[in-house]
Amino acid sequence: MERLMRSLFWDENSQSLKVIDQSCLPTELRYLALHTSRDVAEAIQEMVVRGAPAIGVCAAYGMALAAKESNYTDTAKLKAYLHETGEYLLATRPTAVNLTWAVENMLALVDQFSGSVSELQAELLSEAQQLADEDVKANMAIARNGAELLMDGDVIVTHCNTGALATVDYGTALGVIRMAHEQGKHIHVYVDETRPRLQGARLTAWELTQYGIPYDIIVDAAAGYLIRSGKVDRVLFGADRVAANGDVINKVGTYMLSLAAYDNGIPAYAAFPTSTIDFDSPNGDAVPIEERDPDEVLALTYQGRVVVPEGATARNYAFDITPHRLLSGLITESGVLYPPFFRSLAVLKHVGRNA
Amino acid sequence: MERLMRSLFWDENSQSLKVIDQSCLPTELRYLALHTSRDVAEAIQEMVVRGAPAIGVCAAYGMALAAKESNYTDTAKLKAYLHETGEYLLATRPTAVNLTWAVENMLALVDQFSGSVSELQAELLSEAQQLADEDVKANMAIARNGAELLMDGDVIVTHCNTGALATVDYGTALGVIRMAHEQGKHIHVYVDETRPRLQGARLTAWELTQYGIPYDIIVDAAAGYLIRSGKVDRVLFGADRVAANGDVINKVGTYMLSLAAYDNGIPAYAAFPTSTIDFDSPNGDAVPIEERDPDEVLALTYQGRVVVPEGATARNYAFDITPHRLLSGLITESGVLYPPFFRSLAVLKHVGRNA
Repeated sequence: MERLMRSLFWDENSQSLKVIDQSCLPTELRYLALHTSRDVAEAIQEMVVRGAPAIGVCAAYGMALAAKESNYTDTAKLKAYLHETGEYLLATRPTAVNLTWAVENMLALVDQFSGSVSELQAELLSEAQQLADEDVKANMAIARNGAELLMDGDVIVTHCNTGALATVDYGTALGVIRMAHEQGKHIHVYVDETRPRLQGARLTAWELTQYGIPYDIIVDAAAGYLIRSGKVDRVLFGADRVAANGDVINKVGTYMLSLAAYDNGIPAYAAFPTSTIDFDSPNGDAVPIEERDPDEVLALTYQGRVVVPEGATARNYAFDITPHRLLSGLITESGVLYPPFFRSLAVLKHVGRNA
Repeated sequence: MERLMRSLFWDENSQSLKVIDQSCLPTELRYLALHTSRDVAEAIQEMVVRGAPAIGVCAAYGMALAAKESNYTDTAKLKAYLHETGEYLLATRPTAVNLTWAVENMLALVDQFSGSVSELQAELLSEAQQLADEDVKANMAIARNGAELLMDGDVIVTHCNTGALATVDYGTALGVIRMAHEQGKHIHVYVDETRPRLQGARLTAWELTQYGIPYDIIVDAAAGYLIRSGKVDRVLFGADRVAANGDVINKVGTYMLSLAAYDNGIPAYAAFPTSTIDFDSPNGDAVPIEERDPDEVLALTYQGRVVVPEGATARNYAFDITPHRLLSGLITESGVLYPPFFRSLAVLKHVGRNA
């Protein structure tokens, strides 16, 4: 897998987590070194690192960094500090469940651990590394499973960024498209620009350029016209959390995009690792939807001019809920799940994730 | 009606059409003088003047200016020139039917006219003035008819700009909101920013500020989340063309917004003067959808940075088609029409417009 470019990796020399600074793309590809758990929390909060799977693994490394940054020589005290850090990391972003999943995974290891501080430090770093490797492995499996659904000549609408940048590597929904392209299928992608942070126009367009996959950027509101005009074969996006009934919580706009697909008989698929499934949320309405700084909406210039009038106010909901009834399938590393999703997800839970 | 601020008016002194330069708002309220039919065509093309009713009346003045700018002393030659100018004006924007309606109205007058060149010049100017006055009158009636549908405490999502700026004065959908507000009803407006040209964030937010109506700007993709969360009572927008079956062609994004309203049992209304109805188009799919310069999508900076990667391509569809089945009512100066729209529109045609 030497072609792959990891969006985050552990750097032995500097003993830090190196992450692609996504706020500098597409103009500049720059790695940023995160040395402490605070660095990690800020990177997630400010969306320097974004994308549910990337956030999860990044937080796992945050726990490993926490173990190193403390001066505790007593394992019990270090364990208490790690629990505090876990809470602190969890508070950075409320919606993506991979964050919870990764932190809880690390804390379970902490709770079960008996040994010296330096052994625990080594153990946590090794666990984070393993989660990172597993993410890439899961994404390759998602890509292979999803690519079977794509036909030569397909035109696809995608939302936000679900590529290598949103994961440790290769991506989820964009990984599916990339795999189909690598299999020799001709795919054209309509990229929702994805306001307010423009992950589509900035990151997905940049990734597609790297992979040589043809695309056009559209405003989010134009997807409905394209789909209704018969210009689109499939709709494909990621997920920040999937409820037990198959409701998909994803970047704001996914719901309206799915409505347009459903209204025109075009299949819509969500692609995600099973770590994105939240069996504790019976449906999407039980999931907290992050509201971010209104300035993300208001701080816009167009053709060099300020856009909004002085004193303008905004609301900035970062995610929305797509009811499972609008979805044709859920693409995971364990296979493609079909409706009724409450049942196919329950089976998946029963046989175990990553089976 | 002295409170009203006309977005365009004839200036006797300079013998020109003064229009608010909408590309300078919200930072600056500046009138631009249009002296020739070419000035008018460019203003429409570049969206210095925009909004279906405003475009229509502006084009009517364009015909009046054409009569003045020519040096023909022969009425027949002037008539031929006016037909040429009509074609030229019609080519500026293909979707809004008010443009066609206004130009054809002026040409019908030209064809029936017999008299001197100076009489024809005076006649055309007088006709344009009358269309402008009728637009304001129609908008006030639309506002009164529509305001009856709004309740005290209503929260409304609106798309694009349908206010005074989009018409000669007072507006269509935004006029309805304004009237309800003036009647003492408490209305809160969620303003779709309306990519790519951001008419919502720039113009609607600015108008609402002037009128003292509380609002929040949202990204277009967030309307679905708000509606699904039960935070919205009604959806209200304008129309650039309405087909004989009630399909509404309006600013791109209206279709997805209407889908979200429909999916949640929230009424969606289009407000427009009857000059927007195109009885010659049996349905929305018969209407040409303007595709504009991709740079409108690509030319974006966010937090001072270029957004799209080098070489990025885009498609820029300016309008979409909302099937009549998603709409609860059509608000016109002749009353509110209800489904089945093919029938209520046919009745309207039979009894005459502006009845």
